[in-house]
Amino acid sequence: MARTFLVTLHYDGGGFAGWQRQVEERTVQGEVERALLRLCAQPVRVHAAGRTDAGVHAAGMGASCTVPDRWNPAALRRALNALLPEDCRAMDVREVRNGFHARKGARGRRYRYVIGSDEAAFSPFRRRYEWALGLPLDAGALAAAAGCLEGEHDFHGFSVRSSPRAHSRCRIRSGTWTERPDGCGQLFEIAADRFLHHMVRMLVGTMVDIGLGRRPLSDMQRLLALDPEVRTSPPAPPEGLFFVAAEYPPECFA
Amino acid sequence: MARTFLVTLHYDGGGFAGWQRQVEERTVQGEVERALLRLCAQPVRVHAAGRTDAGVHAAGMGASCTVPDRWNPAALRRALNALLPEDCRAMDVREVRNGFHARKGARGRRYRYVIGSDEAAFSPFRRRYEWALGLPLDAGALAAAAGCLEGEHDFHGFSVRSSPRAHSRCRIRSGTWTERPDGCGQLFEIAADRFLHHMVRMLVGTMVDIGLGRRPLSDMQRLLALDPEVRTSPPAPPEGLFFVAAEYPPECFA
Repeated sequence: MARTFLVTLHYDGGGFAGWQRQVEERTVQGEVERALLRLCAQPVRVHAAGRTDAGVHAAGMGASCTVPDRWNPAALRRALNALLPEDCRAMDVREVRNGFHARKGARGRRYRYVIGSDEAAFSPFRRRYEWALGLPLDAGALAAAAGCLEGEHDFHGFSVRSSPRAHSRCRIRSGTWTERPDGCGQLFEIAADRFLHHMVRMLVGTMVDIGLGRRPLSDMQRLLALDPEVRTSPPAPPEGLFFVAAEYPPECFA
Repeated sequence: MARTFLVTLHYDGGGFAGWQRQVEERTVQGEVERALLRLCAQPVRVHAAGRTDAGVHAAGMGASCTVPDRWNPAALRRALNALLPEDCRAMDVREVRNGFHARKGARGRRYRYVIGSDEAAFSPFRRRYEWALGLPLDAGALAAAAGCLEGEHDFHGFSVRSSPRAHSRCRIRSGTWTERPDGCGQLFEIAADRFLHHMVRMLVGTMVDIGLGRRPLSDMQRLLALDPEVRTSPPAPPEGLFFVAAEYPPECFA
């Protein structure tokens, strides 16, 4: 017999070549599966709600795994944290129904992007966890750019072309810029049913150029209208991006 | 002709084998001297106010160097930051008098030690910069232990035995524990004319055991009285320790 668990992971992306297991690269999936192999004495596959890129952080990644039924949530959490490296930690473990899959089962995902506008953003204690931009952004322009996002759109213009996804429509529930509580820059928070590869970083890169006055607000509208003459700005750097939550319906839980 | 500068460095100690240059190890001195070699096209020696151990951070290390006189403070700071790795940054550069030496010229040094008492201290975003203790400390016991420190004492009991220092007397100006502003644990701040190798970490390790009720307050007094029957607790881990300032008299500055 086996039981399936949803593990909520926090990880500092700076030391990982992203979520997805790769030969000869240190990845989050690789580290979690290595720990589970030791705990269960058999290979255990782990599925995540989102496959973060190299350098992207998680403060609430949902990851599912099926393990022998001698495990309970508290014991699995303790055992994982004893084996996982210090830059990855299981903050919560909950039992879920048989057949649960953290990516297929997620109804929504949320990301946060952190920007530092002040000179101190370049401090070694901050730049690991934010985009050290060092320039002020026009909050009104950012709000107007984010205002275009809500609802369902085709985000083909904001995805990496090689994406194997069958379609590129995403339903954005909310996308808002706010002043950071510490006053040192801006935060962007976005919630959607799904995200394409690189999508949040391309959205942020483009909106930041609008917030700096380097390109017009109309570019945002044209990109969402799939105007072939407009290209996104380069993706914002990975260190400012945090996967903050995956949402699952209550009936998932055992 | 040459000019001498005092560079205030911030560095994340997690990626360094300490301050001091070592063959085949990544050190802060090694990185700064490598940058200066490129900028000056000649070897430049850098002296620091304190030689931090592997894993110890700095948010205000004083470091001195003498470079060709075509350099001014603003240009040197900009050029250093263009060459230094992201985990080390020159936050300030000031010109000082000829012959200035950041270690010999310092009248005092200050350190801070950060402890996390809550469960979230084990988060990968926090444990890099604090001691993830996960246990509450008795604030009264900590205050009493720190109360023994002020004034001049022989800290032989709190130093690594192999220390090559001629004497082990240090004058402690202040040593205080305070509740962290975020309520997640305690901060220890200490100022002295000089510190011995490992001294702050051994003081913190011993005071934490007193704050946990694992050893009596009298051990602190006996250690400071050089009682040979008492030993310090193991040193607190390096990731909680920050070198925060070196103090120089006004006449040092050019």
